[in-house]
Amino acid sequence: MELWFTEHHNDSIGYSLKVNRTLNSENTQYQKLDVIESEFYGRVLILDGILQTTEKDEFVYHEMIVHVPLFTHKNPKSVLIVGGGDGGAVKEILKHDSVERVVLAEIDDRVVENSKKYLPTISCGLYDEKVEIMIGDGIKYVSEHKNEFDVVIVDSTDPIGPAVGLFTEDFYRSVYECLKEDGIIVAQTESPFIYGSLINKLSKMFKNIYPIVKPYICTIPTYPGHLWTFTMGSKKYDPEAVDVNNIPNIDTKYYTPQLHKASFVLPKFVKEIFEEA
Amino acid sequence: MELWFTEHHNDSIGYSLKVNRTLNSENTQYQKLDVIESEFYGRVLILDGILQTTEKDEFVYHEMIVHVPLFTHKNPKSVLIVGGGDGGAVKEILKHDSVERVVLAEIDDRVVENSKKYLPTISCGLYDEKVEIMIGDGIKYVSEHKNEFDVVIVDSTDPIGPAVGLFTEDFYRSVYECLKEDGIIVAQTESPFIYGSLINKLSKMFKNIYPIVKPYICTIPTYPGHLWTFTMGSKKYDPEAVDVNNIPNIDTKYYTPQLHKASFVLPKFVKEIFEEA
Amino acid sequence: MELWFTEHHNDSIGYSLKVNRTLNSENTQYQKLDVIESEFYGRVLILDGILQTTEKDEFVYHEMIVHVPLFTHKNPKSVLIVGGGDGGAVKEILKHDSVERVVLAEIDDRVVENSKKYLPTISCGLYDEKVEIMIGDGIKYVSEHKNEFDVVIVDSTDPIGPAVGLFTEDFYRSVYECLKEDGIIVAQTESPFIYGSLINKLSKMFKNIYPIVKPYICTIPTYPGHLWTFTMGSKKYDPEAVDVNNIPNIDTKYYTPQLHKASFVLPKFVKEIFEEA
Amino acid sequence: MELWFTEHHNDSIGYSLKVNRTLNSENTQYQKLDVIESEFYGRVLILDGILQTTEKDEFVYHEMIVHVPLFTHKNPKSVLIVGGGDGGAVKEILKHDSVERVVLAEIDDRVVENSKKYLPTISCGLYDEKVEIMIGDGIKYVSEHKNEFDVVIVDSTDPIGPAVGLFTEDFYRSVYECLKEDGIIVAQTESPFIYGSLINKLSKMFKNIYPIVKPYICTIPTYPGHLWTFTMGSKKYDPEAVDVNNIPNIDTKYYTPQLHKASFVLPKFVKEIFEEA
Repeated sequence: MELWFTEHHNDSIGYSLKVNRTLNSENTQYQKLDVIESEFYGRVLILDGILQTTEKDEFVYHEMIVHVPLFTHKNPKSVLIVGGGDGGAVKEILKHDSVERVVLAEIDDRVVENSKKYLPTISCGLYDEKVEIMIGDGIKYVSEHKNEFDVVIVDSTDPIGPAVGLFTEDFYRSVYECLKEDGIIVAQTESPFIYGSLINKLSKMFKNIYPIVKPYICTIPTYPGHLWTFTMGSKKYDPEAVDVNNIPNIDTKYYTPQLHKASFVLPKFVKEIFEEA
Repeated sequence: MELWFTEHHNDSIGYSLKVNRTLNSENTQYQKLDVIESEFYGRVLILDGILQTTEKDEFVYHEMIVHVPLFTHKNPKSVLIVGGGDGGAVKEILKHDSVERVVLAEIDDRVVENSKKYLPTISCGLYDEKVEIMIGDGIKYVSEHKNEFDVVIVDSTDPIGPAVGLFTEDFYRSVYECLKEDGIIVAQTESPFIYGSLINKLSKMFKNIYPIVKPYICTIPTYPGHLWTFTMGSKKYDPEAVDVNNIPNIDTKYYTPQLHKASFVLPKFVKEIFEEA
Repeated sequence: MELWFTEHHNDSIGYSLKVNRTLNSENTQYQKLDVIESEFYGRVLILDGILQTTEKDEFVYHEMIVHVPLFTHKNPKSVLIVGGGDGGAVKEILKHDSVERVVLAEIDDRVVENSKKYLPTISCGLYDEKVEIMIGDGIKYVSEHKNEFDVVIVDSTDPIGPAVGLFTEDFYRSVYECLKEDGIIVAQTESPFIYGSLINKLSKMFKNIYPIVKPYICTIPTYPGHLWTFTMGSKKYDPEAVDVNNIPNIDTKYYTPQLHKASFVLPKFVKEIFEEA
Repeated sequence: MELWFTEHHNDSIGYSLKVNRTLNSENTQYQKLDVIESEFYGRVLILDGILQTTEKDEFVYHEMIVHVPLFTHKNPKSVLIVGGGDGGAVKEILKHDSVERVVLAEIDDRVVENSKKYLPTISCGLYDEKVEIMIGDGIKYVSEHKNEFDVVIVDSTDPIGPAVGLFTEDFYRSVYECLKEDGIIVAQTESPFIYGSLINKLSKMFKNIYPIVKPYICTIPTYPGHLWTFTMGSKKYDPEAVDVNNIPNIDTKYYTPQLHKASFVLPKFVKEIFEEA
């Protein structure tokens, strides 16, 4: 049967995956949620029609959003994830022995429950005793917690719908207060091939708040534009000053200590987008 | 009008571009050739149904296939391109002042003519007096020229159809003879997300012939898998030993001297594909 | 090259034709106009993204919208077509020896010109000396001509955009005045599988004006819903009372005298839509 | 979520339905079987990627394949269906009071079971005590039963895969033996817009065997070509000689006594396909 899921990356680009079957479709309090089984990328979580994560390539995004800030920080003990209800970031965070506490602030409990049920290889860390799952508004949570986290990871959906508030200077400033004095924020900041002006705007906001602001990149085959950016804001540590020889060996498929550094070397047009900010 | 060009990256992945119009469609002696005007990526050259290059993102591929080997070589004077009839690689090579001669060995003159007519920003270098356009079999050309080129660039289509012979150990050995004693070959070697086993196989062939073999990567939004590999075989120069401070400034949109080095730092799963070879 | 034109018949149904090339794309004063060459149905005229006519199946629509009313009328001499700028209806009308004058009231001269240039087998009748091409508002034309035509054919696009005014009771009443005392109107009235409520509504309007109102059907493979309706309003002649033995032989591919009568026999659910009006 | 089922009616035509979810996907002994819930046409049974029946438009096909032969026969008591495991034809047959016995010879019991589970409005008749469900080879069943049925209905899939044997002169001859002396066969015989040459070929076979051979038509929105043909072979009764006033009233949505006769009036090009046979 020719059954295809199509996401339009913009009005002019379609990306389609052959589907074996749907595993679940529901309307949550916040969004339309679907889980499908694609032929090539395995199971896929879809929110409001947009691909969030797949079994086969989730490792790129989750390793890069987690290991780069956690190995930049000298001794991360407490980590807050805003969004990230699928659990992929949690799974990677738990590979760091120093971490004692992980808070997941996810607004939609159905994302968590569906990931537990249908994406066990991604959600496996959600059962760990170090993990607190806080279902509710991440912006509110951040505003109520001061000087508490070593690393905050903004693992959000696209800047439309429920996640709009996570792409504002007010929010990034609130995260600053939430972080300890040597804390680090990392946010997913979309692709320069599709959202160049957004990257420029967010970069300006970060520079208004954090002394050290550095974007870094990876390649995600199932995301729009495919060349993906994360933006790091750091109070003290420079991610490029890390001594790669001191990074312990952990089990990864994309991240390596050498790639940690290389991921901060941007293609020229991406560099210019950030530098113009 | 909803007019879409779709390329199936494999049986399970479709990639579609909205099309404003077709500019040309013809059956050449070797392949079906189409030129379309896409809404987002501008004009697109398509051979046998497969996207070859677009006005908007060609810079990634052409800069990376050219500047990495040419800045690895101390003093490249003569460069041979096998394939590459669109002229994109020629355009980038001509940015190197040391180059005195560029030979383009393209089997299909209709690729050259269509690029001249419909893709002027890509083909512009084809008129340069340093450029010799040799319409014919690149394999034969290579076999008849010994010890003649500083750099050979294999700018081929996918390893199906007319380009099959360009993915063989015999051909890479023949290129070895065609290169001078400090020569360098670079070939496009597809995406590890789609063609992992091919990369492994080609890597083995290169290692059987060249003392220095190093793959490097970039991100191409319109190519299957999007994380793209090139494989460099070098008789003498190590591309990672280049002194980036000595690389002169040229006009680029993707390549930078820093990225030259960073592009050799591979994601772990890609590194393993190459190391297992 | 996989190049496909897709029309969405509604939000949930897509109909796609493989395309060899685009022949023309332009924005006229009234609409977006495209002419493509499809692989199966030959050349296709598209207005605002909606398929209007194809070389291969135009005969169904044009024969049925013309021959049924013209053979219902005893002696049609003057025929007005509102819309129909492609010329397909004109071509069929000219097969009737009794006809002395055909007026084509088409709002968009670019439809006429494109059909002349790209669809010669459809537009061939437009050059006939009996044909007056009146570029302008068909509604205005109708309102300014009283008691003048034997048959009026409303060969319109869908009831969105420029054609909205052609689906109103005011217009059908104006046509009544435009017709002679034994005149006949036929309008294309969409498919009951997609537009059941529209058919009901239009049927009511016709019944408010014409003493004899009868819908009839045919099957058009490239139109939404595929089971197509026309609605005839007649001042005097009953289309089902025609003596089929008196219908002269003309060159057709769909229409036959027997089919003339059979086309008024409706599937039950279609009959009910009309009878409930 | 943009999830679409696409069937290619041939290499150049795609027909797509928006899908809410898959209800089942399995590989039976004979074919790939899927049941999906489409947004517009309700639930859909798909075999080997080809749409078989939908909740919303099944009535057209099933009413026309059943009521035309059963009301042509004066007193049908025993009916054999070859194929038709979804039960749609059974449901219509049971509306005829004269019928005492219905045998369903379906090769794939999974079609029957899936229809019972997922398509209750179509399969509802399968539980009737008059119905014998014979899972096995319909060709063999026919060959082993002589002079036994009043009507045989060949409700097959397309002439590829398991149904190939149902489109042969040997099979139609075997059905002749299986029918009583005044028996009638009806087979679905595809669309003249797509399969003109097949219709011609089958028509020749029928004419070699049955004294009365008449094709008839209907319009099915979800089938390739949409203008659908059935071919009737009759030993004694002429379907067009039926007195429509004697046809009792039954509950239908497409069939009417008047349409019974009108469905034998063919468009000219279809008539020619049959007459040339």
